[in-house]
Amino acid sequence: MILTLKPNTPKKDIDLICRKIEELGFKPHLSKGKEVIVIGVIGQNAILKKDIFEAMDAVAFITPISKPYKLVSREFKKENTIIKIDNLKIGGKEIIVAAGPCSVETKELLLEIAEDAKKSGAKMIRGGAFKPRTSPYAFQGLGEEGLKYLAEARKKTGLLVITEVMNVKQVGIVTKYTDIIQIGARNMQNYDLLKEVGKARKPVLLKRGLSATIEEFLMSAEYILSNGNYDVILCERGIRTFETATRFTLDLNAVPVIKKLSHLPVFVDPSHGVGVREYIPAMSKASIACGADGLLLEVHPHPEKAFSDGPQSLLPKQFDVMMKELRLVAESVGRGL
Amino acid sequence: MILTLKPNTPKKDIDLICRKIEELGFKPHLSKGKEVIVIGVIGQNAILKKDIFEAMDAVAFITPISKPYKLVSREFKKENTIIKIDNLKIGGKEIIVAAGPCSVETKELLLEIAEDAKKSGAKMIRGGAFKPRTSPYAFQGLGEEGLKYLAEARKKTGLLVITEVMNVKQVGIVTKYTDIIQIGARNMQNYDLLKEVGKARKPVLLKRGLSATIEEFLMSAEYILSNGNYDVILCERGIRTFETATRFTLDLNAVPVIKKLSHLPVFVDPSHGVGVREYIPAMSKASIACGADGLLLEVHPHPEKAFSDGPQSLLPKQFDVMMKELRLVAESVGRGL
Amino acid sequence: MILTLKPNTPKKDIDLICRKIEELGFKPHLSKGKEVIVIGVIGQNAILKKDIFEAMDAVAFITPISKPYKLVSREFKKENTIIKIDNLKIGGKEIIVAAGPCSVETKELLLEIAEDAKKSGAKMIRGGAFKPRTSPYAFQGLGEEGLKYLAEARKKTGLLVITEVMNVKQVGIVTKYTDIIQIGARNMQNYDLLKEVGKARKPVLLKRGLSATIEEFLMSAEYILSNGNYDVILCERGIRTFETATRFTLDLNAVPVIKKLSHLPVFVDPSHGVGVREYIPAMSKASIACGADGLLLEVHPHPEKAFSDGPQSLLPKQFDVMMKELRLVAESVGRGL
Amino acid sequence: MILTLKPNTPKKDIDLICRKIEELGFKPHLSKGKEVIVIGVIGQNAILKKDIFEAMDAVAFITPISKPYKLVSREFKKENTIIKIDNLKIGGKEIIVAAGPCSVETKELLLEIAEDAKKSGAKMIRGGAFKPRTSPYAFQGLGEEGLKYLAEARKKTGLLVITEVMNVKQVGIVTKYTDIIQIGARNMQNYDLLKEVGKARKPVLLKRGLSATIEEFLMSAEYILSNGNYDVILCERGIRTFETATRFTLDLNAVPVIKKLSHLPVFVDPSHGVGVREYIPAMSKASIACGADGLLLEVHPHPEKAFSDGPQSLLPKQFDVMMKELRLVAESVGRGL
Repeated sequence: MILTLKPNTPKKDIDLICRKIEELGFKPHLSKGKEVIVIGVIGQNAILKKDIFEAMDAVAFITPISKPYKLVSREFKKENTIIKIDNLKIGGKEIIVAAGPCSVETKELLLEIAEDAKKSGAKMIRGGAFKPRTSPYAFQGLGEEGLKYLAEARKKTGLLVITEVMNVKQVGIVTKYTDIIQIGARNMQNYDLLKEVGKARKPVLLKRGLSATIEEFLMSAEYILSNGNYDVILCERGIRTFETATRFTLDLNAVPVIKKLSHLPVFVDPSHGVGVREYIPAMSKASIACGADGLLLEVHPHPEKAFSDGPQSLLPKQFDVMMKELRLVAESVGRGL
Repeated sequence: MILTLKPNTPKKDIDLICRKIEELGFKPHLSKGKEVIVIGVIGQNAILKKDIFEAMDAVAFITPISKPYKLVSREFKKENTIIKIDNLKIGGKEIIVAAGPCSVETKELLLEIAEDAKKSGAKMIRGGAFKPRTSPYAFQGLGEEGLKYLAEARKKTGLLVITEVMNVKQVGIVTKYTDIIQIGARNMQNYDLLKEVGKARKPVLLKRGLSATIEEFLMSAEYILSNGNYDVILCERGIRTFETATRFTLDLNAVPVIKKLSHLPVFVDPSHGVGVREYIPAMSKASIACGADGLLLEVHPHPEKAFSDGPQSLLPKQFDVMMKELRLVAESVGRGL
Repeated sequence: MILTLKPNTPKKDIDLICRKIEELGFKPHLSKGKEVIVIGVIGQNAILKKDIFEAMDAVAFITPISKPYKLVSREFKKENTIIKIDNLKIGGKEIIVAAGPCSVETKELLLEIAEDAKKSGAKMIRGGAFKPRTSPYAFQGLGEEGLKYLAEARKKTGLLVITEVMNVKQVGIVTKYTDIIQIGARNMQNYDLLKEVGKARKPVLLKRGLSATIEEFLMSAEYILSNGNYDVILCERGIRTFETATRFTLDLNAVPVIKKLSHLPVFVDPSHGVGVREYIPAMSKASIACGADGLLLEVHPHPEKAFSDGPQSLLPKQFDVMMKELRLVAESVGRGL
Repeated sequence: MILTLKPNTPKKDIDLICRKIEELGFKPHLSKGKEVIVIGVIGQNAILKKDIFEAMDAVAFITPISKPYKLVSREFKKENTIIKIDNLKIGGKEIIVAAGPCSVETKELLLEIAEDAKKSGAKMIRGGAFKPRTSPYAFQGLGEEGLKYLAEARKKTGLLVITEVMNVKQVGIVTKYTDIIQIGARNMQNYDLLKEVGKARKPVLLKRGLSATIEEFLMSAEYILSNGNYDVILCERGIRTFETATRFTLDLNAVPVIKKLSHLPVFVDPSHGVGVREYIPAMSKASIACGADGLLLEVHPHPEKAFSDGPQSLLPKQFDVMMKELRLVAESVGRGL
């Protein structure tokens, strides 16, 4: 970390700052030019004490020379992380598609969707048993009953299960039934929940918050890794902007950016990100073209009867057609699907 | 709720939609013009089924004619809600100021700040014992120890205590020590936590999420009220925009908007919203001028030693000067402080 | 356009509104339900009078049932517009790439870049002679001299020229030298400039404003078409959001959305949208995968010597490698390049 | 400007960078620590060459130690700029209110509004003769006829005139009739127009662009000052965010920020910023409380008949009541109105 002091900072204040740096266990490296005074703060993790220096009146600018995260960074681990579950490799050459309804509704429906999804090439079934809904009056999910249906779908089809956990008390039960634990966008900075899934023994898919910077997103993943769970998938799902033609603004730029900064696999959720059925295929193709390792997609045979998010669900037939198109795009960038 | 159908929707589809409306327990009211077909969906809470109609291909537009929230709305309760704690009235003529450090650090420091704050006219002491921090490596708060210090500060000064709860398991312990339970911005859509504090017997201050619309903010408050707790304070604390000169963009427009839509008291947190010490007084005055019922302010005698958020903390002396200025502005809009 | 009145609007006010509708040359279609009063405003272009009804106290909601633009819409023209310049077809099966420096600097350099770009498969040379720069002290472009170099590059290589016009007085001179007139993002709502290029006899590439909604973008294009020039290309180039890892947030969602709403060709400018060299190939592939008809790319052999936008320029060699990759993606979605 | 190089940059590259710095007329100041290599670029306006260094692969971070603007900065001029027009002082102790319709419509109406506004305490009449409208089919303003009405209103009431100019060709005619030339938000980065009004002999009110950072706003003002016109008023008018309850998000934080960074007077336009009549008084009070030097307000006796922006216009009576309230707030912060 480099501190640039305000011009004409008196010697007394420079000394004070240097002493403070030493107190914190770092070494100051002072460089006085004609117009500028610069102090390097040398030592591991100095950046974590940024706040202290920001509060000093004599400090004009702070230049971070290291990232505020460690374990999730490419510097820490050069090769891509590949998460293995049964025979599936997430983050490898093959692109993984998870499909399913937004909410688990009935067992029959879930099994029907799962079987269709499998035939089209999906490798995972997705569906919420615990649902974070904007309105307290909206359907809040089937709870454990829903988890059981998911487990049954897994048994019948061999698809892996991914489903959301909403609070620290649910981590145990969700972990019991699912293959991958999902943390929703609205919980990306629910730090106690991140710590809890960091202690779980199942991979975690972490969705980006609606207004989270990529750096904050990686910091939230760092919470999970630093608690012992290294199997984390990062999922872009749309950010909030002024545009209203789409439900959110799916930020595909995040894919190459995260791929550069981190070794973790990156998924994209075009269904939530765009929110309009007819734009999903185009954005799914784009996700693969720019480097995504997987997709989360909503599929529902009767979107108008879905308990939630009907407008963005693909019909099984649309999904099937799209999967064929995605395969071609995947091959064009040297991947499989 | 009014459905506008796509031009030339065949009769068969119109009939289907009308039947669906009846199935859901509402009455359809069909109006066919030359170019337009409009169906009114008549009945209580029809808006809560909006998703179902959005998923229908024949529906071009949906016009909500009622708000998706009830208990928090001005329609439900015309007069301003006044929350009484001991002798304090929140939401009345007097503007309430809560001051204190971002994090509770040591007992001595907290007591010192509390006494200074009281002398300057603050009515509450604020400070975090459980801290939501972006980095897993940053100070995470003193936990229950911090709550005890807050309780002691209350005992010594008579200031009411407001402090944050971060997860469902902490609600019990926080409720035990605090006068007002704070839900932080990053937890505004942590619905299980909202339900839990909805069952608590203490008032709740709910902060607006970084990218939450005012409607979503009110929906989150509705979670608390619908679980039985009607003593909710809404707190604007800055939203995320492209501007980087301030830490967030304090959205004061939210104050008159919420005052119109809801009967609940509205606070503003300029310290977090702006994030730069020298702009706090101007934005505090503006908050009062546009109708805020209270302010949350960070005060710290040694900001450069604070464990968090030093750059935005006022010195006790600056706070004292500002309180005198705020009093004049409060009087100019017919309020006291 | 449908007006939903506030509940309990007195008959007198309903009559007033109906009379106003007739005065404006439309027909009112009144529908009174138990809880709701709805008035359809029947007639061509009623939506253009929206402001008038919004200002009425009795009107609670306005539902537009037609788009505020006409000539640019898919309703007006079903088939894709294909713009023909010499042998080139823009908006057809082939994807068109324009490459070149941000600013025209020297003749030699421009010719060198043009020849390299051509070899790699570009069909147009891009470069600014008039430059909109944030700072008055930055290089403002070579002016007409730059236009001459571009014309010379065209003569030598056969590449078509695209270059920016910044004000109404320059339209004549720019039109003289260029094949396609570019309107920059900061001028997207410079309506007098739009009218002027609407009268020009050359195709126009219109860039989306930094915070323009897609609807506003189409309205700006409507200015050009309604002045007689139907050869308009719409270009997504990144919007402003809170994210700082990329220079702007390239909004690829805009591509399928515009393709649905309009018949005009859509280009993408990943160089400006992302602003970081190493992310350009990924986002270029994604642009093609989601349906873009062309790309605008910055290429410069010595980015560190460029007069502007060096950090986002590709080296000719990088460009060449990328073009080969783009060809594969184009083929995977049934296009050529 | 300070360059922080990537760790392990070879000596050869360091030398190259130092040589480049000298070539550009600056002095390099090298400081090599154990982990960090820092080069200070010493010399006037080094920051203007930032692009060149950003394009260098070895450069990891650039810390600007000076602002990219000069003439508009507090460093350049410590005291507040006070613009004198006749007996009026803009930027002094008195807060100046400009009131009037969005568009100039008829002479009679304009005179009526002007007389009412004057009685209530306004010092300027505002109204557009040239109107930037999103739709090409909307009313585009009366042109010179409108300017004449404004001049007549000035003659009758003594109110100063402020009106908008939209392109370089109109500057002459607008300057002839108006006291203050307004540049609209959509033209904030219309650099040729900024240069042109920089040569005009009348004060300029520059509105902030919808997605312009405060730094870009000041850079645009710098265009005007650097062309010779030092009488510039900066006007906050709302930025674009995700919030839809207000038309834009009026960013009052900009007021204290600009006051700190610049010596120029700051106005606020709550009518456009909020866009909803009933929120205007609250936000006008807040504008004054946080330090605005003046307000731009829309007043119209028949908002439902206005040619534009009716929903945000105050009735003359509402305006009159509000002005009395604003006076109290102004006094509470030591100002007059």
